[in-house]
Amino acid sequence: MKRRPRFVYLVGRGSSENVGRYAQYLLGEKLGIPVALGNPSLFTHYLRPPDLKEAAVIAISQSGQSPDICSVIEEGRRQGSLTVAITDNPDSPLGDAAQQVLAVRAKEGTVAATQTYSNSLAAISLLAVCIRGDKSIAAELEAAPEKMSDVLGRSDEIEEAARKWASGDRAFALGRGYNYGTAHEIALKLKEVCYLLAHPYSSAEFLHGPVAVVEKGLPILLIAPKGAVSGEMPSLLERLDGCGATVLVITNDERLKKGKIIRIPDCKEWVSPLVTVVPGQLLALHICNLKGINPDRPRGLEKVTRTW
Amino acid sequence: MKRRPRFVYLVGRGSSENVGRYAQYLLGEKLGIPVALGNPSLFTHYLRPPDLKEAAVIAISQSGQSPDICSVIEEGRRQGSLTVAITDNPDSPLGDAAQQVLAVRAKEGTVAATQTYSNSLAAISLLAVCIRGDKSIAAELEAAPEKMSDVLGRSDEIEEAARKWASGDRAFALGRGYNYGTAHEIALKLKEVCYLLAHPYSSAEFLHGPVAVVEKGLPILLIAPKGAVSGEMPSLLERLDGCGATVLVITNDERLKKGKIIRIPDCKEWVSPLVTVVPGQLLALHICNLKGINPDRPRGLEKVTRTW
Repeated sequence: MKRRPRFVYLVGRGSSENVGRYAQYLLGEKLGIPVALGNPSLFTHYLRPPDLKEAAVIAISQSGQSPDICSVIEEGRRQGSLTVAITDNPDSPLGDAAQQVLAVRAKEGTVAATQTYSNSLAAISLLAVCIRGDKSIAAELEAAPEKMSDVLGRSDEIEEAARKWASGDRAFALGRGYNYGTAHEIALKLKEVCYLLAHPYSSAEFLHGPVAVVEKGLPILLIAPKGAVSGEMPSLLERLDGCGATVLVITNDERLKKGKIIRIPDCKEWVSPLVTVVPGQLLALHICNLKGINPDRPRGLEKVTRTW
Repeated sequence: MKRRPRFVYLVGRGSSENVGRYAQYLLGEKLGIPVALGNPSLFTHYLRPPDLKEAAVIAISQSGQSPDICSVIEEGRRQGSLTVAITDNPDSPLGDAAQQVLAVRAKEGTVAATQTYSNSLAAISLLAVCIRGDKSIAAELEAAPEKMSDVLGRSDEIEEAARKWASGDRAFALGRGYNYGTAHEIALKLKEVCYLLAHPYSSAEFLHGPVAVVEKGLPILLIAPKGAVSGEMPSLLERLDGCGATVLVITNDERLKKGKIIRIPDCKEWVSPLVTVVPGQLLALHICNLKGINPDRPRGLEKVTRTW
């Protein structure tokens, strides 16, 4: 491709698609590039792939083996698009198909992705930093690992919060903007390994309907670090608390005081998803332990999921 | 804009976004145009709208009043994109902002959108038919109203199925391809008016994690009309039935025999979302009646939701 891509066409499933949700904000805000989360079945079932000639095609897949994801990259190459794979397994059909491969090197052994998720977030962040060529944002990203370690040290506090969650069978996870993908990712972990039917929502979208479900004792996770979308969070938290929901808040915003607060270190909003996902992963782990589930062997799942 | 748009940037919230999910398949399959479901907060909160110069910008909003949706159209105009509004209220800020306005004329009075949803599906379908200029697909679309009426006549049968759903507090709605948006829309109705925490999933995505949650008696709606994505449905239905889930299937596919089947008329897959949503809307209505809820006045919701 000669010109700068007009848009990114990004595909992934499960946790990988949640990295894609992050990429919509990251590439939008830092590079001004619109990101379409693609529809693999247009390629594999409808056999009518859209016109990708002016797109960069990015595929994210832990195993690099799902045929539908590979077929999007193959079609992108056929059309002459720039193709990029982000995968834990570069020696895979996906790694072979893409022109550029970012190996995330998590070597994840468990079924439910956690390291791969974080590393894939980091990979797409590094890509944005490099394209933008801006040292100040590189430094912001480099500060993330220390903040992630800090949150890992709060495990006991999260274990205590988990007790209120372990007895229920449904929940919500709310976030917006950069942390919309985090809400999806934590909800997915709660479903995969805790068998808790957790529903992710944008905190804006939530007010367009789902808020009707909220009732006393319903567990709700609110992911609300300081940033461009945090203005509405205090009133949303008031409303949820007013309904009697059991709210757990992941934040570094001093204005948020209702519910149980998991305080995270200050960080730039665009880097915050690397940090905010950690308490959610720990929450899932502790709920598992409380329920007597082995989080590394959830029922009904295999490590490599092949979809067509 | 002089050239054909390279992609569509589409925004909507709630039911309107579900129409957008349909548009991803419709405009992809019929016109080869990639559709990005946009991120309004990039415009209103991050103040970094992406480059839309080679996009057609489509906004879908029943009320035409949500400031975040309007701001995407306004930015599209500023950048010189083609801008289109699909709205029940052309005499609104959104109607004023867009160059082209498709008024869906549902004049919907209830809070939870049903006619507006169907009419918006029809509006985007007509747009695709006109752009493609193909009389044979126009005839396929014109056959839809009769098939919708047919399903409306099956209300008693759906009422019977609703009894098994009314006592639960969680559920799944599964669909894929053209009916991925239908799964989202029916799940939204079940949340909005039945307070049932229904979770929409692509039937492919479902196998990447959420399937772990399935247990005996869990209500699952499977939207599986015949079409390009129906190959996997018989084995998925076997698997769900094998887990003891209470499965309700909306289909015209003779191969699907487990669970409770709501048989719909034969129709082209691309038109099927107009038909398949009707049993879901009836399901929500009957659950409401069984629970003693007034479906026109769900708690916690107002007709016009303004988000920024």
